[in-house]
Amino acid sequence: MTDARTGRARRRRGPAANAELALLLEVAGTPKPGNVDRARDLADLRFEQFLAGAVGARPGLARAAASDAVGDAFETAVAGMSEQSGGNTQFGCLLLLTPLVRAAAADDRALSPDGVSAVCESTTVDDAAGFYRAFEHVDVAVTDPPEGMDALDVRRGADAVPELRERGLTLFDMLHESAAPIDNRGTPGDANAHEWVEGFPRTFRAADAIRADDGPVSDRAARAFLDLLAEAEDTLVRTQHGPEVAREVCDRAASIESVEEADAWGDELVERGINPGTTADVTAAALFVALERGVAV
Amino acid sequence: MTDARTGRARRRRGPAANAELALLLEVAGTPKPGNVDRARDLADLRFEQFLAGAVGARPGLARAAASDAVGDAFETAVAGMSEQSGGNTQFGCLLLLTPLVRAAAADDRALSPDGVSAVCESTTVDDAAGFYRAFEHVDVAVTDPPEGMDALDVRRGADAVPELRERGLTLFDMLHESAAPIDNRGTPGDANAHEWVEGFPRTFRAADAIRADDGPVSDRAARAFLDLLAEAEDTLVRTQHGPEVAREVCDRAASIESVEEADAWGDELVERGINPGTTADVTAAALFVALERGVAV
Repeated sequence: MTDARTGRARRRRGPAANAELALLLEVAGTPKPGNVDRARDLADLRFEQFLAGAVGARPGLARAAASDAVGDAFETAVAGMSEQSGGNTQFGCLLLLTPLVRAAAADDRALSPDGVSAVCESTTVDDAAGFYRAFEHVDVAVTDPPEGMDALDVRRGADAVPELRERGLTLFDMLHESAAPIDNRGTPGDANAHEWVEGFPRTFRAADAIRADDGPVSDRAARAFLDLLAEAEDTLVRTQHGPEVAREVCDRAASIESVEEADAWGDELVERGINPGTTADVTAAALFVALERGVAV
Repeated sequence: MTDARTGRARRRRGPAANAELALLLEVAGTPKPGNVDRARDLADLRFEQFLAGAVGARPGLARAAASDAVGDAFETAVAGMSEQSGGNTQFGCLLLLTPLVRAAAADDRALSPDGVSAVCESTTVDDAAGFYRAFEHVDVAVTDPPEGMDALDVRRGADAVPELRERGLTLFDMLHESAAPIDNRGTPGDANAHEWVEGFPRTFRAADAIRADDGPVSDRAARAFLDLLAEAEDTLVRTQHGPEVAREVCDRAASIESVEEADAWGDELVERGINPGTTADVTAAALFVALERGVAV
């Protein structure tokens, strides 16, 4: 890239820096109904804690960019993210960003669904162990494990690792399990796990939308968030409030037609304690892909 | 540091990460009348460009933390900061942060006026050359050089380096020159240069105020900014609008008694194109010292 003014070659922000910037642009985008953003703190979670979470995650993201193992890079990112007093700010974002950063670093001309799928599918039992250890750094809202999987409850953290090794499960296997439909009507499982096992379809679609959009990138992020929220039920909302509320939030998002309406709805969601955090995770991942593909701040 | 919940040792954010976080907390703090902040973009300079500037500066800050030469670390930080479309976002902040980071990394029990003075006073002609090269990455608002100093105008960038070597001037020498009173009434010179040559007195005082304050750290930053603005004329305001306006801004800052009043004054300053950027630089430096001394986000 050449600077228009000086004519000198400009360095390009690397994938770890772009991933950190994606975390910052995600939380800056407003309005993102129900979530912390540039214009809103929650009672127990503040904007500045997301800033610290993003800064703290950088060394782990740099490990992913250096092609370190996905599980180790992820655990390092989560450990660094946790060095603030708000608790879990960006665990889900980092779960999506880690393989994306590794894929981008491996071939910077072609961060693609195939490239990131190759990274995800090649994860090992050690990567799964890193994923479990990451849960020791921070409290993450999760549902109870399926029948017969108690020994692999992520809330057991490192205590689950022997069982994991016994069964020979990789990180991809774990997330494949989490992505499976949760009922016989085909209701999808964890939305982040779904991205992992399906080549990040929503992430890449939202990245395209961000690239095609115009104006400040954080404004585009807010619009992408609302579109994603209207497209599929938010996993965190379902975990914390049940399927009816998740469905309601999804439908309502689809009906929002103005920033003012989104703002007002945000007040209502905050009042009810509804926080569509999984949709924010996918938004951050989409911002990363958009930055890697040339969207400029 | 031990985590209260898990009882496990927690890693401590290093000086480069704390410096980047200081840049983010500075721009997040609102209201900071006349400047970009969490609640305000300017027409040609947006919040998200400061986010990108902070992320881009990290590798240079990491060089300072690794005890690389101050001039090289500063130039690297400025080059990375410039990789966004807003132009100069944090040049002055980085000029203050670079020696502070280096001092903090050298002795993390005692980031002190003496420690940072030792760093500044030991700068070399090569460091001054790095400082000049940094001006090639971004347009910085500066005044004309004093008589007989044309050949050393910072706007000459690397072209001034031979003259610099000829005269054997170190970076400390350069900033000592810039800090000198600009008239025979003792009106101080560049406020950032003054910090450099005097052991960062305003920075350390403001850091103490931030530590003694309570509430969210970005709110403390906004209060520290207003106190600093009331304490001394802002160099950037004087450069862009002259000494009368700089005096007026300083006096008015001292009279502000509420957030609402600060907000309204901010509207007026933006209308008049008055941007107290040098005071924001000292605020960022103070935030860094406060974070290094244990203020938690």
